[in-house]
Amino acid sequence: MKIKTGDHVLIISPDEKTFLVVVSENKKMGTHKGEINLGDCIGKSFGERIHSNLEHAFLLLEPTLEDKMMKVKRHTQIIYPKDAAYMILKTGLQSGMRVIECGAGSGSLTMALANAVAPSGMVYAYDVREKHLDNAKMNIENAGYSDYVEFKLRQAQDGFDEEDVDVVILDLPSPWDGIASAAKSLRGGGRIASLSPTYNQIEKCVENLEKHGFVYIETLELLLRYIQVSTGKTRPVDRMVSHTGFLTFGRKIISEEPNHQQLSEFAAPNNS
Amino acid sequence: MKIKTGDHVLIISPDEKTFLVVVSENKKMGTHKGEINLGDCIGKSFGERIHSNLEHAFLLLEPTLEDKMMKVKRHTQIIYPKDAAYMILKTGLQSGMRVIECGAGSGSLTMALANAVAPSGMVYAYDVREKHLDNAKMNIENAGYSDYVEFKLRQAQDGFDEEDVDVVILDLPSPWDGIASAAKSLRGGGRIASLSPTYNQIEKCVENLEKHGFVYIETLELLLRYIQVSTGKTRPVDRMVSHTGFLTFGRKIISEEPNHQQLSEFAAPNNS
Amino acid sequence: MKIKTGDHVLIISPDEKTFLVVVSENKKMGTHKGEINLGDCIGKSFGERIHSNLEHAFLLLEPTLEDKMMKVKRHTQIIYPKDAAYMILKTGLQSGMRVIECGAGSGSLTMALANAVAPSGMVYAYDVREKHLDNAKMNIENAGYSDYVEFKLRQAQDGFDEEDVDVVILDLPSPWDGIASAAKSLRGGGRIASLSPTYNQIEKCVENLEKHGFVYIETLELLLRYIQVSTGKTRPVDRMVSHTGFLTFGRKIISEEPNHQQLSEFAAPNNS
Amino acid sequence: MKIKTGDHVLIISPDEKTFLVVVSENKKMGTHKGEINLGDCIGKSFGERIHSNLEHAFLLLEPTLEDKMMKVKRHTQIIYPKDAAYMILKTGLQSGMRVIECGAGSGSLTMALANAVAPSGMVYAYDVREKHLDNAKMNIENAGYSDYVEFKLRQAQDGFDEEDVDVVILDLPSPWDGIASAAKSLRGGGRIASLSPTYNQIEKCVENLEKHGFVYIETLELLLRYIQVSTGKTRPVDRMVSHTGFLTFGRKIISEEPNHQQLSEFAAPNNS
Repeated sequence: MKIKTGDHVLIISPDEKTFLVVVSENKKMGTHKGEINLGDCIGKSFGERIHSNLEHAFLLLEPTLEDKMMKVKRHTQIIYPKDAAYMILKTGLQSGMRVIECGAGSGSLTMALANAVAPSGMVYAYDVREKHLDNAKMNIENAGYSDYVEFKLRQAQDGFDEEDVDVVILDLPSPWDGIASAAKSLRGGGRIASLSPTYNQIEKCVENLEKHGFVYIETLELLLRYIQVSTGKTRPVDRMVSHTGFLTFGRKIISEEPNHQQLSEFAAPNNS
Repeated sequence: MKIKTGDHVLIISPDEKTFLVVVSENKKMGTHKGEINLGDCIGKSFGERIHSNLEHAFLLLEPTLEDKMMKVKRHTQIIYPKDAAYMILKTGLQSGMRVIECGAGSGSLTMALANAVAPSGMVYAYDVREKHLDNAKMNIENAGYSDYVEFKLRQAQDGFDEEDVDVVILDLPSPWDGIASAAKSLRGGGRIASLSPTYNQIEKCVENLEKHGFVYIETLELLLRYIQVSTGKTRPVDRMVSHTGFLTFGRKIISEEPNHQQLSEFAAPNNS
Repeated sequence: MKIKTGDHVLIISPDEKTFLVVVSENKKMGTHKGEINLGDCIGKSFGERIHSNLEHAFLLLEPTLEDKMMKVKRHTQIIYPKDAAYMILKTGLQSGMRVIECGAGSGSLTMALANAVAPSGMVYAYDVREKHLDNAKMNIENAGYSDYVEFKLRQAQDGFDEEDVDVVILDLPSPWDGIASAAKSLRGGGRIASLSPTYNQIEKCVENLEKHGFVYIETLELLLRYIQVSTGKTRPVDRMVSHTGFLTFGRKIISEEPNHQQLSEFAAPNNS
Repeated sequence: MKIKTGDHVLIISPDEKTFLVVVSENKKMGTHKGEINLGDCIGKSFGERIHSNLEHAFLLLEPTLEDKMMKVKRHTQIIYPKDAAYMILKTGLQSGMRVIECGAGSGSLTMALANAVAPSGMVYAYDVREKHLDNAKMNIENAGYSDYVEFKLRQAQDGFDEEDVDVVILDLPSPWDGIASAAKSLRGGGRIASLSPTYNQIEKCVENLEKHGFVYIETLELLLRYIQVSTGKTRPVDRMVSHTGFLTFGRKIISEEPNHQQLSEFAAPNNS
C-alpha cells in the first residue's frame, strides 16, 4: 500500500512537530527544519521517511482518527477523543447508523461520528452559528469525511428534519433546548448523549430527559492520566487535564400513557 | 422497525434487572417477577413493554455494544468499555480494517473490535487457552458478530498468520511475548495497543516496543467516575472503580537501517 | 515506655481485626481467636505481642489519630482523615489556637481538631442534635481528648459564644446557616472551612462567604487512591472511595466600609 | 491582637500578588503597585489594609502554615501541603513528639513537622547536601520555627543520633537507604512514612520495610482537584497537578525472634 496523490499523511519532524497534509505532486511545504516536497511521499509506505532540503529526516505516518480530530481548525473548544470514543461505544453507534449531532462546533466530534457510521450511515450535523458550520464543513472535507455528513444551519428548538434516527448527540450550552426535538427524531430504544462542562447543566439536562420520558439516564466523567514510562523511574506525569466535560446518556422509550411514576422504575443502575 | 424472531433484545424488569435474550416465538423465560413469553416481543418496537404472567411490565430495549460486552459469560477479567472505546479510536480502527487481537479472553474486546471493523473488515482473535477460546467464540456467536471474527488457538511467540494488518491489540500477561510477532504482521504505520494492569508490565512492554522500532509510544489510564444527578443534591458517587488497566500505544515504522538512536527522535509528545 | 493501666492500645489479631481498648488490669475481652486478658498488656512495649487463651498472637500498637478517628461510634457519616488533615493544615490550626466546630457529628473531626490545638488550645464543638452531641462527647472521652473540647447544644444561626477565634469549621447540611455567626466570632484574618458533599451546597456556600466579606475563597476535593505494592506486580487497587466531600476555605477580612466591589479584588489564585 | 514588629504578615496586592514579610518599623518594600512601608502594619489587625505610595490598597493577612510552606526558597521540589498534612495525621504526629526527617530538602515539610510537634517536641532534620541544609535552615528561621528543629549534615546510611523517636519521615531518592537507620531509632510501635514519585521506588521501599520488620504497610497517593465555583456554572477546573508522589507508611514492631513468616500476618487492610 504505497502513498499516492490525495492521501492524508501525518509528517513528523525530528523534533516532534507534526504536520497533517494531503499529498500533491508539486506542492512544497516550508518547515523550521527546511523545505519538504510533498511529492516525495508518493510511492513511499507509511512508516518510511523523506528528507527536507536541509537533509533532516521526516517520518511519514498514517493519520489516525485522533490525529485528525486534534488537527481541526478550531473556532470552539473541541471534543476530546476520550469523550468522543466513549459516547460512540455507549450509544452503540456503528456502521450504517443515522445520527443527529446538534452543536457541530469545530467538527471534531462530527468526524468521529462519521468515521463510526461509514461507509453506509449518515451524520446530520446541526449548528446555529453559520461561521462555525462553515469551519466544521471545511474540517470535515479536509479530513475526507464529506460523504457521511450533511450540515444544517438551525437551532435545536426548531426541530430536526430526520425521523427514526438511532442516536442524537447534543453539544449545546443549553442541552435541554434540544431534548424535545431529540425525543421526536429518535426511534424507540434510540440513545441520546449530551456533553456539558458544568454541574448546573447536567442537573437541568437530567431533569429534562426525565420529563421527556428517557430512561437509563447516566452521567459520568472520564479522566485521562498519562504515565511516564522509563525503566527504573516510571510514574504518572506531573500535570493532567482535570476536566473536559460531563457526559450524560439516556434511552428513549415509547410511552403508551404519560405515566412518569412508572418511567422512573427504569433508572440506570449506576445512578442509584 | 418491529422486533422479530432472532433479534437481540435487552429486557429490563421493573426493579432494574436486565436480561439479554434472542427472541424466539415459543420460548418462555422465568424471572423473579414472573414468567415472560419471549414471543410477546415480536411485533413490538424497542422502547415498548411486555408483561409477565404476574402482570409486571418489562421494558424492551435494543442492546448496545456496551450491553453486550458487559453480558458476556466470563472466564477472565473482561475489558471495560471505556478502555475498548479508547483503544479503537486511538488506533484508528474503522470499518474495513483488519486487526489481530492476541489474548481474546472472554471476547468482550473482540466484540468491540468486530463492531468497529464491520461489515467489511476482520478480527483475527488468538488465544493460547482452548477453554477460553471456546467461551469467547460462543459469546461472539451469541452477540451476532461471528462473520467478522476468526478464532485461532496459538501463543503469541509463534507468530500470526496475517500480514499487513492495520492494528494489533495485545491483552497478555506478558505483552512483550507478542511484540516481535506484532511487528512482523503490521504494515508500515500500523498501530499497536496493549492493556496491562501493573506498572511492571508497562515498563517492560515499552522497553520492548522501543527495541522493535515502534515510535510514538504513549501509556495512559482512563478513570471513569459516575455522577449522581438529582435536583439540589448533585454529587460524584461514593465509590468508583479505581483501576482497570494501563493502555500503551505505539506505531510501526519501516526502518531502513537498525539505527535506534535515530528512532528515539520520534517520541510521543505526551511522554516527554 | 511501657504500657500501663489507662493507656489506649490498638490490638491486632493475626487475621487483621483491630480492637481499640483502654488497658485495665482485670478486664478480659472475647475475640474470634480466643479470650485475651487486657492486663497482659501492662509492662509490654508497643510493638510487642500478647497471646489469647487459644495461643493466638495479638500485636499491640499505639493507636494513631487516624486509628481513633476511624473507630468512633458513628451516628453520622464521619469525616475522613484525608479531609480532616488538609483542613487543619490549610486553616493553619496549631497548638494553642481556639477553634469553633459547628456540626460535631460523631466527633471524628472534633478529635483531629483537639489533637491539633492541644495542649493549650480549645475546641468549641456545637451541634443541634442532642443525641449526636452525647455520642460525640462519649467518643472524645474514650479517645482521651476531653480536656480540649467544650460541647454546646445549639444551632448555627443562633451564634457562637466565643469571640476572636482563629478558625471556624462548618460541617452542616446548610453551611450558609453558620456563615454569619462565623464571621462574627472570627478574628480578623481568621480562617473558615466548610465540608459538603454536593455541588449545590458549595455553590450556595461560596455565594454566602462572598456576601459576608470572606476572601481567598477556594473549593477543592481530595481523592485518595491506594496502591497495591507487590514485587513485580505493583498497581493501583481495583476500587476506591470516589467522593467524600468538597472542602471550601476562606479568610475573614475587616471591612472599613461595606464595599463588595473592592473585596472581590482578593480572590484566591486557584479559583480564577 | 494588633500586628507588631517581628510578626509575619502575608501582604496581598490588589491583583493578588502575595508577599510574606517580617514587620520592621523602618523597612520599605518596592512592589509593582508602588512602595509600601512595612512599619504601616504596626497597630493594624489582620484583615485590615495598608496603602502604597501610589494609593493602592494592600490586604494584611496572617500567614498560615500553607502560605509559609509555599513561600520557601526552593533548591529542590517541595513537599505539597496535601501530602505533608496527611503524613502528619497518619503517623499520629502531635505536640510534644520527637520526629526524624531524613532528606530535609528545602524545608517545607520540616516546617509542617515543627508546627505539629511545637511547642514541646522536636524535629531532627538530616540532609547530606550542605547547600540544601543551609537553605532549609534559613527557611525555617524565616518562618519562625527554629526552636523546634535541629539540623544535621549526614547521609541516611550512617544512622541517626536519636533513639526512641515517635516518627521517622524519609524523603530520599533511595528511601531504602534510610530504613535500617529508621528501624534502629524508632521506638516500638513508632511510625515511618516515605515519599517517592516513582513506582520503582515504592516497590523497593516496601520490600525493605517488610525485611526490617515493619507492619501495617500501606502505599497511596492523594489527588487534589480544585473546583471553580460560580453561581450557575460550577465545574472542576480545567487542569490539575496529576502527581506529586506516592506515600508509604509502616509501623515498627518489636520482634522477639526474626520470624518474617509471622510478621506478614499483620498486613495493612487496604493493601490486601
